[in-house]
Amino acid sequence: MKSFGSDNHSGVHPTVLTAIQEANTGHQPAYGADAVTEAARKLFRQTFGPDCEVFFVFTGTAANTLAIRGLCRPYEAVVATSCAHLNEDECGAPEYISGNKILSFPPVQGKLTLDVIERLRINPNDPHRVLPRLVSLTQATELGTVYSLNELRALTDLAHKRGMLVHMDGARLANAAVYLNCDLSDVTTAVGVDAVSFGGTKNGLLCAEALVFLKPDLAPSFAFIRKQSMQLASKMRYLSCQFLPYLQDQLWKKNATQANTMALYLRQRLSQLQDCEIPYPTQANEVFAILPTTLAKHMQEKARAYAWDGPLHRFVTSFDTTKADVDALF
Amino acid sequence: MKSFGSDNHSGVHPTVLTAIQEANTGHQPAYGADAVTEAARKLFRQTFGPDCEVFFVFTGTAANTLAIRGLCRPYEAVVATSCAHLNEDECGAPEYISGNKILSFPPVQGKLTLDVIERLRINPNDPHRVLPRLVSLTQATELGTVYSLNELRALTDLAHKRGMLVHMDGARLANAAVYLNCDLSDVTTAVGVDAVSFGGTKNGLLCAEALVFLKPDLAPSFAFIRKQSMQLASKMRYLSCQFLPYLQDQLWKKNATQANTMALYLRQRLSQLQDCEIPYPTQANEVFAILPTTLAKHMQEKARAYAWDGPLHRFVTSFDTTKADVDALF
Amino acid sequence: MKSFGSDNHSGVHPTVLTAIQEANTGHQPAYGADAVTEAARKLFRQTFGPDCEVFFVFTGTAANTLAIRGLCRPYEAVVATSCAHLNEDECGAPEYISGNKILSFPPVQGKLTLDVIERLRINPNDPHRVLPRLVSLTQATELGTVYSLNELRALTDLAHKRGMLVHMDGARLANAAVYLNCDLSDVTTAVGVDAVSFGGTKNGLLCAEALVFLKPDLAPSFAFIRKQSMQLASKMRYLSCQFLPYLQDQLWKKNATQANTMALYLRQRLSQLQDCEIPYPTQANEVFAILPTTLAKHMQEKARAYAWDGPLHRFVTSFDTTKADVDALF
Amino acid sequence: MKSFGSDNHSGVHPTVLTAIQEANTGHQPAYGADAVTEAARKLFRQTFGPDCEVFFVFTGTAANTLAIRGLCRPYEAVVATSCAHLNEDECGAPEYISGNKILSFPPVQGKLTLDVIERLRINPNDPHRVLPRLVSLTQATELGTVYSLNELRALTDLAHKRGMLVHMDGARLANAAVYLNCDLSDVTTAVGVDAVSFGGTKNGLLCAEALVFLKPDLAPSFAFIRKQSMQLASKMRYLSCQFLPYLQDQLWKKNATQANTMALYLRQRLSQLQDCEIPYPTQANEVFAILPTTLAKHMQEKARAYAWDGPLHRFVTSFDTTKADVDALF
Repeated sequence: MKSFGSDNHSGVHPTVLTAIQEANTGHQPAYGADAVTEAARKLFRQTFGPDCEVFFVFTGTAANTLAIRGLCRPYEAVVATSCAHLNEDECGAPEYISGNKILSFPPVQGKLTLDVIERLRINPNDPHRVLPRLVSLTQATELGTVYSLNELRALTDLAHKRGMLVHMDGARLANAAVYLNCDLSDVTTAVGVDAVSFGGTKNGLLCAEALVFLKPDLAPSFAFIRKQSMQLASKMRYLSCQFLPYLQDQLWKKNATQANTMALYLRQRLSQLQDCEIPYPTQANEVFAILPTTLAKHMQEKARAYAWDGPLHRFVTSFDTTKADVDALF
Repeated sequence: MKSFGSDNHSGVHPTVLTAIQEANTGHQPAYGADAVTEAARKLFRQTFGPDCEVFFVFTGTAANTLAIRGLCRPYEAVVATSCAHLNEDECGAPEYISGNKILSFPPVQGKLTLDVIERLRINPNDPHRVLPRLVSLTQATELGTVYSLNELRALTDLAHKRGMLVHMDGARLANAAVYLNCDLSDVTTAVGVDAVSFGGTKNGLLCAEALVFLKPDLAPSFAFIRKQSMQLASKMRYLSCQFLPYLQDQLWKKNATQANTMALYLRQRLSQLQDCEIPYPTQANEVFAILPTTLAKHMQEKARAYAWDGPLHRFVTSFDTTKADVDALF
Repeated sequence: MKSFGSDNHSGVHPTVLTAIQEANTGHQPAYGADAVTEAARKLFRQTFGPDCEVFFVFTGTAANTLAIRGLCRPYEAVVATSCAHLNEDECGAPEYISGNKILSFPPVQGKLTLDVIERLRINPNDPHRVLPRLVSLTQATELGTVYSLNELRALTDLAHKRGMLVHMDGARLANAAVYLNCDLSDVTTAVGVDAVSFGGTKNGLLCAEALVFLKPDLAPSFAFIRKQSMQLASKMRYLSCQFLPYLQDQLWKKNATQANTMALYLRQRLSQLQDCEIPYPTQANEVFAILPTTLAKHMQEKARAYAWDGPLHRFVTSFDTTKADVDALF
Repeated sequence: MKSFGSDNHSGVHPTVLTAIQEANTGHQPAYGADAVTEAARKLFRQTFGPDCEVFFVFTGTAANTLAIRGLCRPYEAVVATSCAHLNEDECGAPEYISGNKILSFPPVQGKLTLDVIERLRINPNDPHRVLPRLVSLTQATELGTVYSLNELRALTDLAHKRGMLVHMDGARLANAAVYLNCDLSDVTTAVGVDAVSFGGTKNGLLCAEALVFLKPDLAPSFAFIRKQSMQLASKMRYLSCQFLPYLQDQLWKKNATQANTMALYLRQRLSQLQDCEIPYPTQANEVFAILPTTLAKHMQEKARAYAWDGPLHRFVTSFDTTKADVDALF
């Protein structure tokens, strides 16, 4: 029985397990000095641009939090929507681990808007207030919507103009790129993003995430930050190897395409129901629906739909969700 | 070519990969609410005692640091040898992540001695000094020696008498238990240890460590601490499943026995060399040798022996080291 | 020329300087073991109740931040208005120093409202979200309004019912008590507040603030927290002595009465101006006024009125503001 | 009755109280934008050199800890003697507040020695170990000895050569300069020190310390660090004004001369006693003596001599200690 509770409920794609098996050949240098990790690094440079520097970590929370730790001094602030994962769902890791304040703002359909950045008070001569330094955008957003390339360009331009950097929480970046029908670099490097938390786990990998700095010299000594933050894998190759099929064979695209397609199909099925309202566009692998009580109960049990806020429920499709899985809900 | 540089250079034991494969069956609840993790928890209670509570994390540094965070308030101090991994080799993670000071003392053959604990100034009325609260013992030690059960009992008794708790850094606990020819609980719970970082990665697992609290109520709300410290795996089953064969089928013992045996064999071979002095007993899977220059160079290249301190070199054997691997060095 | 920019612009009341002079008698034990500090502690118990425990610190930011550090574990959250001083004006000290997240909500006339506390998600079984633990109320508020005793009672009752504690940022507590025509304990201890940052500096003291825990056992080992947070004065008597006249001779009341009276007088004068809108009640020593451009410029120069938000300006009166000072602005 | 327990037991010099009184003239801008603070800053530049930047703080622990926070990233380490105040007597503030590890080494007569710096492992490519970045020297040392100018020059030269900065904990810098018969800049700026915690409180000031960066651009945005660390005084003039007589009229020298002279006299008196051994040179205002039991008891009661370590006792003289005070002990 498939779950629609979260894409974290899915397992690991068989190709990824094969890659792990293949990396398991005898002894290798630890901590990333191995050939597999070097190959993965090269792939990241091919994917995100020659200037990028990648650091593998274990969780999305770590990728986000360490992006902040790498890019901000503790008196600098992060700007994000109130529904941002790093604001709501990481148990205050950014504040605790790096000490930074998050300035959060109501989203519009899951997105941070230009006027928020426009209106930020940024005064390097006023030490009473934290200094806004990093805009964090989630792509696809926590509400299943996707920033267009134009929207991203405008946001990064404005952020840079105001002296800030831009981080992208890409836990579901693959799903966004599929929706936008573009390459991973198009939706990150090309639109001016400075650093991206590139998600793997939610899209078929085994506890593997990548923090990618897209421009040179953004986070000198980040190797120390990763180690001090308990995210340096000794047997690194078992993280890095997963990205070989993920990037080289575009497994990211294949998996995200399936999930996105199934989300649209689920939306279609839901929209045919009486009394079921769907408040946001479905652009990635999440469908939000306002469900009447009986249906809510049914969907919580059958689909493990997540009660997001009162009658508003979230369904998430995964790389291995099938039409039959969706049909079984109705 | 096998490496003697670190047991981190070895790979993952095939049985463990099989366990991962077997855990990869469709969708499961995330964050540890799955059946595999529940089975692993049960095994830990069978292994370490019914009161134990286990938390899976990704790295040994995380297990050690979060043990401190769970057991100490920030103004309390950790007592350890100067060569303790958490003092020397974790890039200050304990200080940075939990804010605690480490009071370090010269080891005697890698071990913390009773007189250190005896002489600690512990004054709950003097806020100028950190309050010693947690004794951390590494078993087996960083110098390849092993505390006897009597030594451990004496240390934990004294620590408790002085109002302190005892943590064991068990990155190589399996190797110590094999040397002592005892069960894992004999060397931890039974001798009064309060919490143990139970290592897996160095002994054939894939980035899987377990922080085990051995007595009830030691770290209430630790689930929040783990999450806030970026160590909560979403697809938890892929960590926990590895401990099924490790504990149930005693893979820990099989693997550590091989490594220990090979360390003794390597020691024997080294001791036959002229000018090669072996300063410490070889009780686990590490051999320390003072090497003349030419031999040092040879062993650095051939065995990837680690230059520990001037001419003092460290060799580490792994679960898959063979006699032939050792012989190939000479 | 008096300033209306902030009550921080005023100096030290002559009586306070005399108290400092009188405390300057030869050698005394350091760090609070002196007779003056003991006398001050006794006065605090007489003022706030026999169970209270007082800790002197240097700044209001320190009092607020250390209240949080004393009352919360790092994964617990503080609930406050978005305009709360600890949220907006302390450069992220709470987040950096204690690691806690602040959950901020739009104020209603400067106040936190019951429905905010009512609706908080508090789930001790969900480690993904910080656990709301401490409600922080500013009295008088940052907008110059004052919570009534009934409002406070309702807020603390609800907070306690939900398992939370209540902190009061009392940087201007004296002004609030004067407005409410009540004793300091009436507006704190009697209405269920757990800890108060009792301000002195803004009301005539010399860099002296008091963090008062109003119930027993709220912050065990707080002496260590204060020292570790760099707020333990060696020559403590020079802080504590200031509270002798402040409490014993009710200097707090005399000073706040003057400031409040002058605020009302200023409000009256402003309200007679054309085009000057006064959006909030004036209940303490702050007057907010929406000023047309020319008048704004005049008041910025003449009164050092603080441009709060666009045309909205803040005027603050002090313990030594006179009618003539107010009249001189017009 | 004068105390020899600590120079913190003394009071405030009358001239300093007068300066406070004189600063108490009506309203002034807050947070250091006032004329008194500007005058004090100018005096610091005259005293320590034109490039220096001074930040007033409340305690010596704050000056030391914030020097570290300003000069180091959290994965960088501080090198100090084990008896350094910041290592032993600040309740782990440096570790907690800035996250930095302190690498401590046994002192030789209170001093850090060249070979310690020489032997430091500094490897910017090894993220497993903290990177030594800041050498902290206490002048005068915690054992009452004084580094010569040559010793300081050699230490700072070596530290700089190794890519490190040098901090001086100058809680008793005045006493050291008096002993060396030199100016304050001779013992800091001129010998290459990068930052100094310039003590005031122990030498007659009222909770006033100064953190002075002696070279440009060492700690950009330090104003934010001070505020976020709860050490920004609103009524700054009451801190800064104390340094006017302290520096302009060389009150530092007068006070320290008296204390040093009395320490030598006390040493002479103690040395005439039978069975009283004095292990260290007396170069500042501290005398250490190994006392037989009866004498120890007498001196603890009469002089409040501090039991440093078993029979070893510490006596500290103050700016107002007189010959009669010393004579009264015998």
